[in-house]
Amino acid sequence: MTPDEFRAHGHRIIDWIADYRARVEQHAVMAQTAPGDVKRQLPAAPPEAPEEFAAILADLERIIVPGLSHWQHPSFFGYFPCNGTLASVLGDYVSTGLGVLGLAWQSSPALTELEEVVTDWMRAMMGLSDAWSGVIQDTASTSTLIALICARERTTRYSLARGGMQAQARPLIVYASAHSHSSVDKAALLAGFGRANIRIVPHDDVHAMRADALAEAIDADVRAGATPCAIVATTGSTTCTAVDPVDDIAAAAAPHELWLHVDAAMAGSAMILPECRWMWRGIENADSLVVNPHKWLGAAFDCSLYYVRDAEHLVRVLSTNPSYLQSAADGRVKNLRDWGIPLGRRFRALKLWFLIREQGVAALQARLRRDLANAAYLASAVAAAPRWRVLAPVPLQTLCVRHEPEGLEGEALDRHTLDWCDRLNRSGATYLTPALLDGRWMVRVSVGAEATERRHVEQLWIAMRQAAEEPAAAISRR
Amino acid sequence: MTPDEFRAHGHRIIDWIADYRARVEQHAVMAQTAPGDVKRQLPAAPPEAPEEFAAILADLERIIVPGLSHWQHPSFFGYFPCNGTLASVLGDYVSTGLGVLGLAWQSSPALTELEEVVTDWMRAMMGLSDAWSGVIQDTASTSTLIALICARERTTRYSLARGGMQAQARPLIVYASAHSHSSVDKAALLAGFGRANIRIVPHDDVHAMRADALAEAIDADVRAGATPCAIVATTGSTTCTAVDPVDDIAAAAAPHELWLHVDAAMAGSAMILPECRWMWRGIENADSLVVNPHKWLGAAFDCSLYYVRDAEHLVRVLSTNPSYLQSAADGRVKNLRDWGIPLGRRFRALKLWFLIREQGVAALQARLRRDLANAAYLASAVAAAPRWRVLAPVPLQTLCVRHEPEGLEGEALDRHTLDWCDRLNRSGATYLTPALLDGRWMVRVSVGAEATERRHVEQLWIAMRQAAEEPAAAISRR
Repeated sequence: MTPDEFRAHGHRIIDWIADYRARVEQHAVMAQTAPGDVKRQLPAAPPEAPEEFAAILADLERIIVPGLSHWQHPSFFGYFPCNGTLASVLGDYVSTGLGVLGLAWQSSPALTELEEVVTDWMRAMMGLSDAWSGVIQDTASTSTLIALICARERTTRYSLARGGMQAQARPLIVYASAHSHSSVDKAALLAGFGRANIRIVPHDDVHAMRADALAEAIDADVRAGATPCAIVATTGSTTCTAVDPVDDIAAAAAPHELWLHVDAAMAGSAMILPECRWMWRGIENADSLVVNPHKWLGAAFDCSLYYVRDAEHLVRVLSTNPSYLQSAADGRVKNLRDWGIPLGRRFRALKLWFLIREQGVAALQARLRRDLANAAYLASAVAAAPRWRVLAPVPLQTLCVRHEPEGLEGEALDRHTLDWCDRLNRSGATYLTPALLDGRWMVRVSVGAEATERRHVEQLWIAMRQAAEEPAAAISRR
Repeated sequence: MTPDEFRAHGHRIIDWIADYRARVEQHAVMAQTAPGDVKRQLPAAPPEAPEEFAAILADLERIIVPGLSHWQHPSFFGYFPCNGTLASVLGDYVSTGLGVLGLAWQSSPALTELEEVVTDWMRAMMGLSDAWSGVIQDTASTSTLIALICARERTTRYSLARGGMQAQARPLIVYASAHSHSSVDKAALLAGFGRANIRIVPHDDVHAMRADALAEAIDADVRAGATPCAIVATTGSTTCTAVDPVDDIAAAAAPHELWLHVDAAMAGSAMILPECRWMWRGIENADSLVVNPHKWLGAAFDCSLYYVRDAEHLVRVLSTNPSYLQSAADGRVKNLRDWGIPLGRRFRALKLWFLIREQGVAALQARLRRDLANAAYLASAVAAAPRWRVLAPVPLQTLCVRHEPEGLEGEALDRHTLDWCDRLNRSGATYLTPALLDGRWMVRVSVGAEATERRHVEQLWIAMRQAAEEPAAAISRR
């Protein structure tokens, strides 16, 4: 494809995306396809000869789009929002079009230096001190894996330079909560700790980790001859946006020099609102934290920010220095390959730079406040309706709700919950993700897609009542 | 930004990228900026109010572009090529614009199913049997980390479910070569093996791992009471595209049930040429392999393909299953979160799908053959020139060369090599990366940027001779 062909086809792609975004509301939110539907429409073998670009676009329209769940739909209330705001999308287009790589500072200096600038901007926006250094990773799963590896290496004084995890006389222990994200467990297992060395610290009745129980667990491990190594606290858990008490956890961890990693993947975006910063009070006592601007804030996926207080330690754990990556600038510059797992890096700072500049901080704050108000509105409505319950506090924009008809409990109630949620999803009216809370199914409503206005939340609430209270009636898409 | 504003700004971005690509040859290939040049031109604080899109574009032009090294430049011969072909760029634009995520099959079924289709296409294009299952990762570093973790878990029969790497009675050993990529070392260290448990197997005089030496090293470890666990063989090493004998290595590894991972990050693209497949003869005996279509083949970065023979094992090591990610389709579908480290996933299959369809297999093959011929041409020219040497075989498109003036050797020769290469890079005429080979600096010339034609290689050779043979003369950019 020549640059001129790119110009022609590219304009069509821009128009296609603009149309898609303008009309996304016309789609069923959750894909209505059955397993294999997409695959069976595609040829099993690649084409020998070139195909017309128009044919590719036609297949995109005919085969791919019907197989999508639409995350940018205003009635998307599943998982957590993943807002690819259009300004950020264009920043990413520049990155992909330039096709430059950040293996080393020299391999594209602006890539490294702009990343430093925007992670500093975000640090200031979230009210963090300048003791933190940031870097862009792909996802919180990766950031948390890096955090636990760094914890392991700090506690063992760089065992990786010797016998690794295989040479531990006393087992290293990781502490988390039953409400920590699944990636915490996964990271501890991948980093080699072993499931037997993960402690699930009890939580209180609003699903926040109990710092006193953490202190007890640490003491018990020390008495048993183990070595407490790391604790992961969560600001805004996935199931119910529970808020672990970072300050108390830091206090419990400090005497034993535990690495404190704070997973604020979701709630981190809210930290640009001063009124929300109580949620991670004590954050300056943490060793590392992760915030995902690709969620609520609106940076096109993937854009996970990992901040550390001791950058030198991070680099010592992750650095490599083969001759073919050395340059005369080494020693005076950041080489971001030493701040993460991959060697190659996209120019991801552009999408955050475009987002923050095109929006401005005040408008980003206003949008998040809109969503908080919409969630509070829905929480009031649900709480006021007969037989409906809001099951957990709503510090952010995610509600845990259940419809509890008289006489239904236990597994029968679970069946009812999963049934109405499933019918609602299959109607195309919305996308909600159910989850287990305290051993029972409930329905998560995560407000905050960029396009979601009050009317979409009002429509959702009507559809929820209809689906749960009148199971025989057809659900209307509007 | 509304869809209509996106349409207007997006057309400008498309034109800007089209112009950039059409005129990329006018830039100095390697950025001529000094450390801090970019950063000091950018405000330290984010803007409160929105900025005009035109202001962002102006800064892009004025501050960012001068700080880039231009990987898509036809005179880029550094590192390995990283071709973001324009068809593939458009595929990625669709992905970013749609903003859908692959946490689970249900979260966008087409994302998962198209990934299955294109990884199957690539498998067929590279002549692999259908015993392999593929998945898209970000980079080879991540793929190799996953391979070594999977090796660890197979050898220990899933120690992650128990005491992890901390519970090994006998140390697990990883084998690699001094010519393995730096990511192999890094992966072994991150996976917890420890540097003391990495064996560097000797290589022969063309820098290929010696299978007999591997067998000896394994035997010595067994005698010493250690447990051989994994071997990483490389098809096309980074320094000099050395080719480890996969078949002989597999034979040495088999009696001890070592996990064999093949790093074909660079050379994998060449496997679409039947005449190149001798390079990984024996590949069907490997357990895992990685190929990066984002290098030579032309998929926009990042697109690293990781193939395994035992997908069930991969999923068992990497799976998580929190309630909020469960769906009715589970059990009948692939959930790609269980095939890699991150939970969230971009729709990366689109860029490979666009590339293969818009080009067709035959044209991709023709371009790679063009580059092989250009590299062979340059190798002949260098070998025929007085005082110039080609230092290693050229099975692919990368040459290791040195100019050796009479009487210069040792560190004086190193200074000469680094000096002429540095002057050439600073002239803007090209971007070459020097590296150490057999303890002495040499200059790598990696042919294969998409835009590189014979004339660019001819110009490069003139500039190299000028820089090395006439150090006092100014280097012309053309």
